[in-house]
Amino acid sequence: MTNFYCGKIAFIDLDNLDYKIEDTSIDLKRNYLGGNGFGVKLLYENTLPQINPLSPQNTLIFAVGPVTGTLLPSSSRFGVFAKSPLTGLFFDSYCGGTWGEQLKRAGFDALVIKGASHNPVSIIIENKKISFKHAENLWGLKTLETQKLLNKELGGDFTIATIGPAGENLVRYAAIISETRAAGRGGMGAVMGSKKLKAIAVKGTGDIYVHDPKGFMDYVRELHNRIKQHPGTGNVLPTFGTSVGASAFNDLGILGAYNWQKETFSNVNKISGHYMHKMKIYQKTKACLNCPIRCSKIAKAKKGIFQDYTTEGPEYETVFSFGSLCGNDDIGSIIAADRVCDELGLDTITAGAVLAFIMECYEKGILPNHLLNEVKHWNIMFGNLSTIDKILEMIAFRKGIGDFLAEGTQRMAEDLGREALELCTSVKGLEVPGHTARGLKGMGLGYAVSNRGGTHMDTRPTVERSGQYDPFEIKDKGKLMKDNQDMTAIGDSLIICRYTEGIFGFFINNDFVKMANLTTGLEYSLEDLRQIGERIYTLERMFNVREGINRSKDVLPNRFLNEPIADGPRKGHFITEEELNYMLDDYYVARGWDKETGIPTDETLNKLSLLEIKEKEDENAS
Amino acid sequence: MTNFYCGKIAFIDLDNLDYKIEDTSIDLKRNYLGGNGFGVKLLYENTLPQINPLSPQNTLIFAVGPVTGTLLPSSSRFGVFAKSPLTGLFFDSYCGGTWGEQLKRAGFDALVIKGASHNPVSIIIENKKISFKHAENLWGLKTLETQKLLNKELGGDFTIATIGPAGENLVRYAAIISETRAAGRGGMGAVMGSKKLKAIAVKGTGDIYVHDPKGFMDYVRELHNRIKQHPGTGNVLPTFGTSVGASAFNDLGILGAYNWQKETFSNVNKISGHYMHKMKIYQKTKACLNCPIRCSKIAKAKKGIFQDYTTEGPEYETVFSFGSLCGNDDIGSIIAADRVCDELGLDTITAGAVLAFIMECYEKGILPNHLLNEVKHWNIMFGNLSTIDKILEMIAFRKGIGDFLAEGTQRMAEDLGREALELCTSVKGLEVPGHTARGLKGMGLGYAVSNRGGTHMDTRPTVERSGQYDPFEIKDKGKLMKDNQDMTAIGDSLIICRYTEGIFGFFINNDFVKMANLTTGLEYSLEDLRQIGERIYTLERMFNVREGINRSKDVLPNRFLNEPIADGPRKGHFITEEELNYMLDDYYVARGWDKETGIPTDETLNKLSLLEIKEKEDENAS
Repeated sequence: MTNFYCGKIAFIDLDNLDYKIEDTSIDLKRNYLGGNGFGVKLLYENTLPQINPLSPQNTLIFAVGPVTGTLLPSSSRFGVFAKSPLTGLFFDSYCGGTWGEQLKRAGFDALVIKGASHNPVSIIIENKKISFKHAENLWGLKTLETQKLLNKELGGDFTIATIGPAGENLVRYAAIISETRAAGRGGMGAVMGSKKLKAIAVKGTGDIYVHDPKGFMDYVRELHNRIKQHPGTGNVLPTFGTSVGASAFNDLGILGAYNWQKETFSNVNKISGHYMHKMKIYQKTKACLNCPIRCSKIAKAKKGIFQDYTTEGPEYETVFSFGSLCGNDDIGSIIAADRVCDELGLDTITAGAVLAFIMECYEKGILPNHLLNEVKHWNIMFGNLSTIDKILEMIAFRKGIGDFLAEGTQRMAEDLGREALELCTSVKGLEVPGHTARGLKGMGLGYAVSNRGGTHMDTRPTVERSGQYDPFEIKDKGKLMKDNQDMTAIGDSLIICRYTEGIFGFFINNDFVKMANLTTGLEYSLEDLRQIGERIYTLERMFNVREGINRSKDVLPNRFLNEPIADGPRKGHFITEEELNYMLDDYYVARGWDKETGIPTDETLNKLSLLEIKEKEDENAS
Repeated sequence: MTNFYCGKIAFIDLDNLDYKIEDTSIDLKRNYLGGNGFGVKLLYENTLPQINPLSPQNTLIFAVGPVTGTLLPSSSRFGVFAKSPLTGLFFDSYCGGTWGEQLKRAGFDALVIKGASHNPVSIIIENKKISFKHAENLWGLKTLETQKLLNKELGGDFTIATIGPAGENLVRYAAIISETRAAGRGGMGAVMGSKKLKAIAVKGTGDIYVHDPKGFMDYVRELHNRIKQHPGTGNVLPTFGTSVGASAFNDLGILGAYNWQKETFSNVNKISGHYMHKMKIYQKTKACLNCPIRCSKIAKAKKGIFQDYTTEGPEYETVFSFGSLCGNDDIGSIIAADRVCDELGLDTITAGAVLAFIMECYEKGILPNHLLNEVKHWNIMFGNLSTIDKILEMIAFRKGIGDFLAEGTQRMAEDLGREALELCTSVKGLEVPGHTARGLKGMGLGYAVSNRGGTHMDTRPTVERSGQYDPFEIKDKGKLMKDNQDMTAIGDSLIICRYTEGIFGFFINNDFVKMANLTTGLEYSLEDLRQIGERIYTLERMFNVREGINRSKDVLPNRFLNEPIADGPRKGHFITEEELNYMLDDYYVARGWDKETGIPTDETLNKLSLLEIKEKEDENAS
């Protein structure tokens, strides 16, 4: 039998501050690969249906993948998995830095954290030794301070993932922060906060297992060359950072602006990566562990009211959410917002989207007086983020209007009523990121069916932006997006960063086989990986079906279905209900899910070896 | 039987100023598609081996393809085919504008021009009516003047392809010019000049045949969307023009400079497309017929000794050849060189490369006195193109040192001796364009085996720049480059522009099948097209084998094989002879050519239905 590596899984019980460690089973590895695969399998098995995501009954999982911590470019990531307090569905969020590497060096494939502590606590992992540490002194601290203080207490060489005040106060879009990197979306930080878990500090000194070190190093060298040669990863991203997207998408007429009332932003040139490069707002270039792309930047506000604020970032999504989406062209305020979100532990996409939404509600005159007064007081209006530092603090500490804003757009809109719901651009409760639904029809389908809701990480907008497929065509998009989603599931299981797409492509191919086999030695075939990708995505859907998801919930916000794009090169485009339904039919067929209900058929579950899981479920329920 | 379209082929006899018109046979269409396919088949059959390319025995062919003149983006091109006076081998060169559309509307698939006129003559084609017109009054005129004057004589609505003084004086890299577009490489203009053929004026009023107009228009609309969405064709090329490549390649360390002594150029920022855009040197954006990419620019020199010179261009290759390759950062001189080359009818790549070569010869002190004096007099030194207008005129009229420079680098080097030969970067007599051989190993192989010699149009550097393949890996490059060459053969047969690569990809795929079938109705399968691509490329090789080409001629210049890149990110890279031999073995196997000789085996010829042609050839020879 082939030599292969499986690490350990720690099951941590916060109710009793106890844990047990088990070997990762070879079956889990063979059938779920790592990362995302482990996350969904473990979450499905360890969470009861219909629980409150902010109760101790939710389970919080951390996992790494076969390539995590190796020298493979873009492989420094770890995943976080839980039922999301925003969507009430399966959620996975990924984070760079070095925490994942440390967990792997400590010998773990995953942590499964259940229950909740009575008092604030940190988990300390030093190789196989797991301990708990009171965290009263850390509670209330910002994320960078927390990391600094805890590390000092521990002797200085731990890597720490932590929440800030936002997570503690159960802001539904609180992030988990490690170094200055975030597992940003879906409120994983709030789940952590609900468990009174302030931080997880890890130190690992073991080796990173690679099955075929020589073959692997040859492949790594090859990838370095390919990354260097590719204009995106070799030149554009290292030079201009990810925010270069802002001007590119604006030119295409697909840059969300003014809460998606528009899809161009006239002052984009004052906030894009090109501008920050040209104006020397970028002070420095950074990279995740072992990653040659170096897309990360240290930016400093050079003038204005936020002068001298610095941040690692702002990434494209932040420039979109606090910039064009809020009609705001003050790059200083975006840099400040990025930094403050990192410090407080907030998802920048949802935070910006929440503000853009309330700005439009104000503009449309549909705010009740108590909110209206606060909006006016804090000047929360399109084109103005002059109080952004204050507003974000109010959100994180749930003070004043911040308590309302902390709920996320969907709940706010439901609260405000019908008119507000029409302005809400969340999918399944998650605010859509900076990628058009109306200007790329397959992406529109992707949003509607995504297991995470309004994410660009299940289905990729790059597929249709590549020029290889017609973005306005609805034919054959079901299969295309299904294949793309299976790739993202495998990418998130290995775990690699999405910015390698230009290198690896949009679909599972032999590069993925190489990555999996050189590291694990498990001799996956291309067909194996395709099936694993499909299995993971379908099990996520099963989790969601258990929570009440079906075809009737696979919808798009009113704005994208019924309002044409108002401006720019894509003016007049939107997705009709007929088009969406056509693509949905196509998609369910490609997935082997029932066309009427959108629920995986027993035949499909059987093909993916998932039927047993469902039957066990049915047994438990009866 | 399926309805399909075949036009006519005109066989024009310049010895007797006579012609006959034949139907294009369905077999030719089925087996050779159009453009490149027609060109090689007709040239092979209508040219004896070992003839002097500048004698009346050479045959000059013009051909269009199934998509020429249709609404398909990037489809306005026609091809020119002859034995090249630079390489002595099969050559094909393509040109944009509207001449190809007019020829198609006149009802022709191709013109096959044999013999030579005693006195300067023009061919006038008005639909099926072909006539000859004395051209004494045009002889000696520049290309734009010629078009203007001839059109005036003809009543004003003809489109004209013409040569300038360079073609008349048999400069070995003379171009054919139509409007301001060029069939630039390989000296097709000299072949035309050797026939005393000054111009071909065409007017066609027929319809452009498309087999399935509705399906075709749907597809065209789809392509417009895909082109618009793609960052390269939708944004970068329309904004910055093709010269954007200069800075991108410099960043990658693969921008030829100082006659390839270096592969970076420190002042690239003063000559790149970004600079011309920023400094408003670009006055206007232009497009070929029906092409939404609009990569063409009108540039104007805003200061310096060439102030107020304007040109359509300069394209990337011109910025490379007169810019970095000559160590020259004066954008005004590049604009002037581009304009003067168009007017005189010169290939800008070879013209710049010839100058860079003589500059290095001067630097190395290996010029004999008579040349040395002229070089000093005209100040032909790296970093200086202050007399470029004068030098190009001397070349076109073969005056003074111009007579020497008019022979091209290979012949100049042979004349100057061993030391000069080591500085010569031609492949099979054709100067390599602005794409590295040392920094992309598969491209190095591509140069070595290319039927045209030093061209980026048989094998594409984009394959390895895409990030999908390791540019420093030699394994599997044979098959990869073979498949890519088969794609370029099909692309040149349809005929589409290379700037659609981001849309259609690097290999023959279903897009090519669609283009072929929607226009012709001939129901080619994917496998059919792959075989046609291979057939075309192999027949080109057979033409070259007839001229003495074999494995021993599939080599790279000394500089690329034995001198590592001296500077920049790719410093130290080159291709060893072992590596080249490894890739050659691989390539011949993929092609089904004998590994020892590099000559297609009878088995391969039989598979491609080419054996009969060879046997007929053998018969004739015996």
